[in-house]
Amino acid sequence: MSTRVYNFSPGPGTLPYEVLEQAAKDVVNFQDTGMGLIEMSHRSKEFMAVTANAEQLLRELMEIPDNYKVLFLQGGASSQFFMIPMNLLGAGKKATYLNTGVWAKKAIKEAKLFGEINVAYSSEDRKFDRVPTEGEYTVPADSEYLYLVSNNTIYGTQFPTFPTTDKMLVCDMSSDILSRKFDVSKFGLIFAGAQKNMGPAGVTVVIIREDLLERTPAGTPTMLCYKTHADNGSMFNTPPCFSIYVVGEVLKWLKKQGGVAAMEKINKEKAALLYAAIDATPYYRGHAEPASRSLMNISFNLPTPELEVKFIAEATKAGLNGLKGHRSIGGCRASIYNAFPREGVVKLVEFMREFEKNNPA
Amino acid sequence: MSTRVYNFSPGPGTLPYEVLEQAAKDVVNFQDTGMGLIEMSHRSKEFMAVTANAEQLLRELMEIPDNYKVLFLQGGASSQFFMIPMNLLGAGKKATYLNTGVWAKKAIKEAKLFGEINVAYSSEDRKFDRVPTEGEYTVPADSEYLYLVSNNTIYGTQFPTFPTTDKMLVCDMSSDILSRKFDVSKFGLIFAGAQKNMGPAGVTVVIIREDLLERTPAGTPTMLCYKTHADNGSMFNTPPCFSIYVVGEVLKWLKKQGGVAAMEKINKEKAALLYAAIDATPYYRGHAEPASRSLMNISFNLPTPELEVKFIAEATKAGLNGLKGHRSIGGCRASIYNAFPREGVVKLVEFMREFEKNNPA
Repeated sequence: MSTRVYNFSPGPGTLPYEVLEQAAKDVVNFQDTGMGLIEMSHRSKEFMAVTANAEQLLRELMEIPDNYKVLFLQGGASSQFFMIPMNLLGAGKKATYLNTGVWAKKAIKEAKLFGEINVAYSSEDRKFDRVPTEGEYTVPADSEYLYLVSNNTIYGTQFPTFPTTDKMLVCDMSSDILSRKFDVSKFGLIFAGAQKNMGPAGVTVVIIREDLLERTPAGTPTMLCYKTHADNGSMFNTPPCFSIYVVGEVLKWLKKQGGVAAMEKINKEKAALLYAAIDATPYYRGHAEPASRSLMNISFNLPTPELEVKFIAEATKAGLNGLKGHRSIGGCRASIYNAFPREGVVKLVEFMREFEKNNPA
Repeated sequence: MSTRVYNFSPGPGTLPYEVLEQAAKDVVNFQDTGMGLIEMSHRSKEFMAVTANAEQLLRELMEIPDNYKVLFLQGGASSQFFMIPMNLLGAGKKATYLNTGVWAKKAIKEAKLFGEINVAYSSEDRKFDRVPTEGEYTVPADSEYLYLVSNNTIYGTQFPTFPTTDKMLVCDMSSDILSRKFDVSKFGLIFAGAQKNMGPAGVTVVIIREDLLERTPAGTPTMLCYKTHADNGSMFNTPPCFSIYVVGEVLKWLKKQGGVAAMEKINKEKAALLYAAIDATPYYRGHAEPASRSLMNISFNLPTPELEVKFIAEATKAGLNGLKGHRSIGGCRASIYNAFPREGVVKLVEFMREFEKNNPA
């Protein structure tokens, strides 16, 4: 095979190589059943075990309390933007949102279709280069929940800790789930598209406190009620089998690495290496305010857009792929999710030093 | 590897072996990019080409007119049950449904949330053993569309031809899309979960006439508007990349087999072999009325439930898997979708003869 590249893509993102190799075997012949995983009935005992194991591992790794359901849904994180207010808000009910980027903004837009939405903070006027500290916003007493995006992929910002409000938190963790330890019990609902830190595209994990399953207004389509999926172990209809399977394999890999605490340590090391390279010289400028810096996505600029184009092109030739920043802020972005290897970060840092030397501003 | 079994599963169902082998390679390293298909950005030129090729092949194989959009969506066929009336019916609008099985019934339930639904025919009182002929129902003039399920997986019934009403047809073709030729222009909307005749679970194909994209009522969540996906080439959000890729590979395989007309001929031959075996002796009884018999799913009974249990167990030992009938009608069911090989049908017929000889009623 050709050399494996270092894949800095923001998502779908790099996966552990051993997971890919296992998936390749199982796609053709799963556990010597004589059929491929993707041909098997979702109600077969083999596939039921795949789903059960994935759920069990996620519960163990995230220390999810027993009064939470774990759902494997379709439709992407984008479908959660409307499903959350559709299920959790009723007529006249309110919720508070923190606008820390385009994904928060899209969630706000959909939520407004279902209730009164209070946007308590926005960093839009500064290209979303920071997340708020707690003193910077208030959560009105009549809010059903406080909604936030834990990590903002495009801008490279991340809440260093979660808000301590007495309202339940509802959180989009698509780009940093399983990257650090935290207390699930502060949350009413956590969701994450799998394709950044957990697996391939096609499945979205929803972790929901059980009592919230009863809030859905009458007249909501069956497939859009969380309860439908909770009551049927995510098998009300045919689930996205392959994506769930790969999530399970990634979770096995994560457990072997030492679990979430070990991963958090490695993530901090990887990010520190890269931020140190950025801070070492004015040639590179990080997009995010230092206090809001993400451990997952590192967005940065070079002295000119021309140099950025050249940087990305030469990096790609050197086997460092996917470094182009999002069109909304330009520049470069290195996404270094759980499965991104430390060696790749070291390579990028070396490349950055070389590039600066060869291409003075 | 262990011997490959004959997989009669109703879905997810058997796939062409060469597709599985290709998928195994591409999961690890796609087209020598140095990354696996399931790690690649959905906006990479490589993956955009995967989606474009899958769409192009589907258009070619089904002869889809230019004024139709092809969408690759998530949420399963079950999500179409509500998305169709949500998008196509407005307040006070009506639609007509034919109740030919549990999937039609579920679609009717969801449709009633959005408009006035006229159920013009039902075979529920006879365990859905038939589909109606044209004289058996009327479609009121104020119906926006006539909804039908082309093939009823559980009962093994199939519309031998499509209704000739002047109303547009809306059709669930989850279990027989690409199995026979028909004129797409009679339909307003066609949808199919991939996991029976097209690929793995996790993607649903929607073929929709362009003018219908404008009907969606204001206030519909962005992800639930067909127009959102049509305007963004199914890339408004991260699509179910792997499932779309496999659909594309299955379509390539189908084209190599000679396309839909060739497939229809083979499907007729396979089904004829099996129905002949059933009709040859009173030991086996087909569930469906002969005029409504499906070419895809063949549901049948043995003299007693005990013999059925034994039949299924011994068949499984003989490498004939997935023959258990749906719990709602019991008995046996052989699902012989496009990718199911003729040799497997021959083996089953031989097994049926042997079993009858060894286990007299």
